[in-house]
Amino acid sequence: MSRIVTLTTDFGNSDWYVGAMKGVLLRINPAVTIVDITHDVPPQDIIAGSFILLNFCDYYPENTIHVAIVDPGVGSDRRPIAVRLSNSQIFILPDNGLISLLMLRYQIIETYLISNPELMLENTSFTFHGRDIFAPVAAHLSNGASLASVGPNIYDAKISPIIKPVLAKDEMTGEIIYIDHYGNCVTNIRDELKYPVEEISIKNHKFSYINQTYSEVEIGSPLILFGSHQFLEIAVNQGNAQRLLGISKHDLITVKLLLD
Amino acid sequence: MSRIVTLTTDFGNSDWYVGAMKGVLLRINPAVTIVDITHDVPPQDIIAGSFILLNFCDYYPENTIHVAIVDPGVGSDRRPIAVRLSNSQIFILPDNGLISLLMLRYQIIETYLISNPELMLENTSFTFHGRDIFAPVAAHLSNGASLASVGPNIYDAKISPIIKPVLAKDEMTGEIIYIDHYGNCVTNIRDELKYPVEEISIKNHKFSYINQTYSEVEIGSPLILFGSHQFLEIAVNQGNAQRLLGISKHDLITVKLLLD
Amino acid sequence: MSRIVTLTTDFGNSDWYVGAMKGVLLRINPAVTIVDITHDVPPQDIIAGSFILLNFCDYYPENTIHVAIVDPGVGSDRRPIAVRLSNSQIFILPDNGLISLLMLRYQIIETYLISNPELMLENTSFTFHGRDIFAPVAAHLSNGASLASVGPNIYDAKISPIIKPVLAKDEMTGEIIYIDHYGNCVTNIRDELKYPVEEISIKNHKFSYINQTYSEVEIGSPLILFGSHQFLEIAVNQGNAQRLLGISKHDLITVKLLLD
Repeated sequence: MSRIVTLTTDFGNSDWYVGAMKGVLLRINPAVTIVDITHDVPPQDIIAGSFILLNFCDYYPENTIHVAIVDPGVGSDRRPIAVRLSNSQIFILPDNGLISLLMLRYQIIETYLISNPELMLENTSFTFHGRDIFAPVAAHLSNGASLASVGPNIYDAKISPIIKPVLAKDEMTGEIIYIDHYGNCVTNIRDELKYPVEEISIKNHKFSYINQTYSEVEIGSPLILFGSHQFLEIAVNQGNAQRLLGISKHDLITVKLLLD
Repeated sequence: MSRIVTLTTDFGNSDWYVGAMKGVLLRINPAVTIVDITHDVPPQDIIAGSFILLNFCDYYPENTIHVAIVDPGVGSDRRPIAVRLSNSQIFILPDNGLISLLMLRYQIIETYLISNPELMLENTSFTFHGRDIFAPVAAHLSNGASLASVGPNIYDAKISPIIKPVLAKDEMTGEIIYIDHYGNCVTNIRDELKYPVEEISIKNHKFSYINQTYSEVEIGSPLILFGSHQFLEIAVNQGNAQRLLGISKHDLITVKLLLD
Repeated sequence: MSRIVTLTTDFGNSDWYVGAMKGVLLRINPAVTIVDITHDVPPQDIIAGSFILLNFCDYYPENTIHVAIVDPGVGSDRRPIAVRLSNSQIFILPDNGLISLLMLRYQIIETYLISNPELMLENTSFTFHGRDIFAPVAAHLSNGASLASVGPNIYDAKISPIIKPVLAKDEMTGEIIYIDHYGNCVTNIRDELKYPVEEISIKNHKFSYINQTYSEVEIGSPLILFGSHQFLEIAVNQGNAQRLLGISKHDLITVKLLLD
């Protein structure tokens, strides 16, 4: 197991929540390398959290431990789990579908129910499992504990159905699943798109081809391209597509294909 | 002394202030482990900064060095101090009351006036003691300097009177002292509350019991519980209590007790 | 070369962009020390990014590697470069003027065009050079690769003309170049200002002397001082000058000098 523990949460950066987790990690493993991915997942937005995991995890050394917490059900009977994926990355997270989008590229190799109290803080609270359960478990793993030591194998981790684009005749309909810091609007249409495109529509805007990079259009002009995440994305060269085109999450996008 | 230095400031994350401090730390002690707690303490809000310190410090290894800077009086005659508390944590901070809320759980073991110029940068500025005084002192401590090396012992660190709830007959009146990233509203009423509760009121809302976790109420419903910080907190299951109930800092909360 | 790599970007903290870069760094050099300076440079604001670099870099150990990415031209023919300055700091950044303000204090010792594909990720994307080019190059340097290994020497790095204050008779006219998290408004007038000042005007406000620190004026009152960055700055004691005085970037400031 790696000594690297990454943190992806919706805890924000303004309180003590992340700081308390880091203390727990360092107390158990003083040699741990803690990496903040983001703590600004939109509160309780499991899809956004999952999309973020999908886009960074594969760049880490094998056996890196990724703690991910977007956890509206904390304190209920939702389970904490530890998952090893086919890209040799380890995830410590609530079993609420947060692992789902990773299934677009990787497979689950093994899943364990986190239930060994020896790996948790004493007197776990009802509302802060990040500090009391997820952080100490990750720290013990980074110290060399085996994945199996966290609890029994399970085979029914929750995989939310992934919203795939719908193909009907010569038209594919997708939707906006993520909007980033720059206002780039990411769709659920991936680069497997095999056919040439006749026209792409979103809101009242139409695009007749897919660009490769922002600077191929005028400054301030919108474009469509496959982003570095390999999904179709609406962007504006040196601008903000969300604001310019008035796009929101879940807006529909229609791709008219040129079939032979 | 630990090689861990934590940083809690109101410097924000958008400028070079924190980055300059980290450079000073690494130049003096290349092996230092720097941990960002938060740099988003509300500007110049000493109570909020103190509440954050209270909630994370005890999770760190003993002798961790906590630099805390919320410092409206920088450049005036307010003193920089180094404090060891009874939980074996070290604090490097301005003597402006920032240590106060820690007195709810810990005692001061020793306090030193930071005045040894050999532990500071040359030519300290009037406006950026974080870079010129607090960071280099913390770095030298993490390198093995003794706490006493920073300057003379003092015995009059400023402890702001902590706003305690008022008990009158069968009614306790507290107030909102902190609102977190999720809109959870924390009161100054702690879990020593010994008597059963008849009714709790804040603004126009009344609660007849104290819950244990968010998911015990419907999604979108408000509740009252003792948070992971052990203070009474108003929350909304998967929602934002600050917005839903229109709560602000300093709003009053009334707890009607069921005395025998 | 140092094992420290700092990161200054306009990527924001809410997505996976910074997290992916950190993974690339750690995969190539597991012993790297990654330091976040800020990821909240205003999007595509090259001057602000350059001012931030100017203010923190000199506090780092010699041969620290500073990755800076404010890169509206990503994917165009703008060049990625590696620069060594006279303060023995190394910069890995796009050749779009981001290095310019550093010329106020340091000189360029050598510049290399980053072009060696062996130091980059395979299949570099068109839109995310931070992950695919800048991070891996920095990681290889921190691992001991020589600066010259990144590509050929070049001698024409882009230095944007630095907006200097204009001196006419007994009057110097400068402008606001940066506004920080506290609302402090920084001008392009540096502390070389040699003559005594008769009056300083910005918007409708006039100041008749330059203070040394905030607390020399009443709480809530505006003042002018040389900030810790050594530029003339408009501030408010325990307040926000940007809001109180209605100052924006590029607003003019006039300094009437008392010549002999």
